[in-house]
Amino acid sequence: MSHTLTESRKATYLEDLKTLLRIPSVSTDPNRKDEVKRCADEVARQMKEAGLQEVEIISTPGHPVVYGEYKTDPDAPTALVYGHYDVQPEDPIELWTSPPFEPTLRDGKLFARGATDDKGQFLCHIKAVASMLEEEKTLPLNLKFIIEGEEEIGSPHLAPFLEAHKEKLAADVLVVSDSAMYAPDQPSIVYGLRGLAYLQIDLKGADSDLHSGVFGGAVPNPALELARILAQLKDQDEKVTVPGFYDKVEDMSVQERQAYAALGFDPEEFRAGVGVKQLTPEKGYNALEGRTARPTLEVNGLLSGYTGEGAKTVLPAKAMAKISCRLVPNQEPDEIARLLEAHIQKICHPSMECKVTRMHGGHPWITPPDHPALEAAAEAVRAVFNKEPVRIREGGSIPIVIDFQKILGLPGILLGYGLNDENLHAPNEHFRVENFYKGIEISKELFRALAKSQSLAG
Amino acid sequence: MSHTLTESRKATYLEDLKTLLRIPSVSTDPNRKDEVKRCADEVARQMKEAGLQEVEIISTPGHPVVYGEYKTDPDAPTALVYGHYDVQPEDPIELWTSPPFEPTLRDGKLFARGATDDKGQFLCHIKAVASMLEEEKTLPLNLKFIIEGEEEIGSPHLAPFLEAHKEKLAADVLVVSDSAMYAPDQPSIVYGLRGLAYLQIDLKGADSDLHSGVFGGAVPNPALELARILAQLKDQDEKVTVPGFYDKVEDMSVQERQAYAALGFDPEEFRAGVGVKQLTPEKGYNALEGRTARPTLEVNGLLSGYTGEGAKTVLPAKAMAKISCRLVPNQEPDEIARLLEAHIQKICHPSMECKVTRMHGGHPWITPPDHPALEAAAEAVRAVFNKEPVRIREGGSIPIVIDFQKILGLPGILLGYGLNDENLHAPNEHFRVENFYKGIEISKELFRALAKSQSLAG
Repeated sequence: MSHTLTESRKATYLEDLKTLLRIPSVSTDPNRKDEVKRCADEVARQMKEAGLQEVEIISTPGHPVVYGEYKTDPDAPTALVYGHYDVQPEDPIELWTSPPFEPTLRDGKLFARGATDDKGQFLCHIKAVASMLEEEKTLPLNLKFIIEGEEEIGSPHLAPFLEAHKEKLAADVLVVSDSAMYAPDQPSIVYGLRGLAYLQIDLKGADSDLHSGVFGGAVPNPALELARILAQLKDQDEKVTVPGFYDKVEDMSVQERQAYAALGFDPEEFRAGVGVKQLTPEKGYNALEGRTARPTLEVNGLLSGYTGEGAKTVLPAKAMAKISCRLVPNQEPDEIARLLEAHIQKICHPSMECKVTRMHGGHPWITPPDHPALEAAAEAVRAVFNKEPVRIREGGSIPIVIDFQKILGLPGILLGYGLNDENLHAPNEHFRVENFYKGIEISKELFRALAKSQSLAG
Repeated sequence: MSHTLTESRKATYLEDLKTLLRIPSVSTDPNRKDEVKRCADEVARQMKEAGLQEVEIISTPGHPVVYGEYKTDPDAPTALVYGHYDVQPEDPIELWTSPPFEPTLRDGKLFARGATDDKGQFLCHIKAVASMLEEEKTLPLNLKFIIEGEEEIGSPHLAPFLEAHKEKLAADVLVVSDSAMYAPDQPSIVYGLRGLAYLQIDLKGADSDLHSGVFGGAVPNPALELARILAQLKDQDEKVTVPGFYDKVEDMSVQERQAYAALGFDPEEFRAGVGVKQLTPEKGYNALEGRTARPTLEVNGLLSGYTGEGAKTVLPAKAMAKISCRLVPNQEPDEIARLLEAHIQKICHPSMECKVTRMHGGHPWITPPDHPALEAAAEAVRAVFNKEPVRIREGGSIPIVIDFQKILGLPGILLGYGLNDENLHAPNEHFRVENFYKGIEISKELFRALAKSQSLAG
């Protein structure tokens, strides 16, 4: 049944991806609201061009959602495809080899912010629709698309959106391509995701920056006090020291650790790939377990005092840190944020005014790896790659996946077309063009496999 | 003998100060090299206008030195006046009430970067010359002026300059006004200064910023490792933990601590003045001792990862801290920098590439408080303020004072006209206009008192 994409169709689809990537749809930046909107318009245009029906841009209190659907037969299974057209900020911009919003091909890779996260990936499903409708004039199943514009800021308006449109969005299975293959030639099906609890710590000492000579030795230093707090949040075994942090963690089973071990993960190759001297997983776990199935605490940003060129002898008035925890089942983001906040306030030096601001959070997610929807995904992978997909947990967070489960009752297929070395959230983000084309093929096979899966249809 | 300044002369002198303050002579900023030069030109112009002779702008490998002299009688004492026309960077600029390089009068205070450090202060001596020459047509002593442009970057070329011009600069006493009065109506003579050792720490983990979800829990975090290093540099008693740090410290004598106690320093008033919840001097010392006569370690700047608005889930590749130690006799800045560097390298986690860069340093300085030059300064203070000056150590660093002592053999008078609450090195720096005028009066009295001090003349 599989039709390989023609060269001319590939070229057209790639141009359409570049058009999306040229739009700086940075959702966290209030100055780029119009660009985000422009990106939604372009997604809608490409959906219509593909042949989707009822395409509409639905406004939310934040950035809009792009919706589209294709109705084949009320008795056929219905898949709901989720993606996001917003992207991370591009800074530090000086580290990009080519401009972040001018998609540039080098060595078979398309470089641009959003290439792999997530414009290149969700577009595979839209182009699969375009390709199937051109070839077969119809689709074998019902499809619904939700492409949102707020994933990178924690999807604050998606859950209410799902609540408000429960009937419209009714489906049998959720399909998300916003994760990574296990290796360049080895697709994976993800059955677990980590959650997130993100906080900002702001310390204030004196009312203004002071001369470190005149005041140093009497007035406390918020940059040092911040360092003291951060240093106390993890111990030398890389375990988080916040009381209660691990209480609800469901540890990996012996079976799961055996399955992980069978994947043949090479920590030395991984270490060399990221260019670090040494890996530092939590004691008792290897690096693959540490970055996918164990909770973490990271410092995401630090700022205090003088950071320009040269030396300035300032005793800073303020210091700021952004920190975040990745969570695993059954940690609750609100509870972890509360524990963290209380612990930080407790260990903060009494000379400091300490403000802890909760930013966004998301639940961890896990689904049994033998679910029939995942079997359909495995069949699609076999059809295109002629091999079994790896089944693994992913270390990142897609907080909305749990909302789809909670609100719409949908099981989920996380079938990524990206790769972890594609610099998502970092300078020089890119997407392998070959995987863009293969992703489209897999999507087509997935739609066919899901259509045949009788146990899915409502 | 004292003539109070006329109102018209005050107005002229204040306008001349404003002219100096309008020039952004930020010596650490390579983009402002021309502004620094323009400031040297203006200092030279005002020296000539005051009546100094042989005024010249002497180039160095960095920013130029402005030189001027007045020769009265080879047998009269010669005073060498030192000051600096360069200023600290103005950032964070958003915290200034009025623009940093538009001098603005509010409540009898002149707000501008450099107002108190040091343009307003060194200008008192130049205007004292102008005033005396107008009134008396001559000066009672020989004067030499060196106003340099690199004090805020550690005066890298001043020591070689002094070496190269030993004969030209021969004098009997050094006069420096680059420090603070003890209180608004209480001048002080400073007999001790702290030295400085300033370092930058740069940690590198992975080759680029990474997604904290995909890589967190396996790849080490330089922001956290930096916090761990900084937190280990001081203990809970606010003592520096670097081995050997205190080995050469000459502790305060019982007599000196008694004299300090007699000053009636009010820590609660000081605390409220800087707006901090609690003071944190080194254990065993009070706040006044801690900020003037004890060595310290401060974090001057921190930068890592994402520091903009909102949340970015990045695992940073790099983290940077600027730190500095204030030193007291007999700590050696090079030795302390070496001890710090070795300790930081030793405690740094092996997963990190750690680069420690020594920035500038300066020796501590102390002189016996009963030196005859200081007696002359005390006489000048009595003539203008009708009270005894306080004699105290200052917490800041004027590394060049020790160079004048070492290279030219000069004892020093540090007679400050500023105040510690005038936000030097911080936003909203200012200088009390009244103290500008009084400073000119004291300078005139000082020149007269030094002229009479027979024990000074060569």
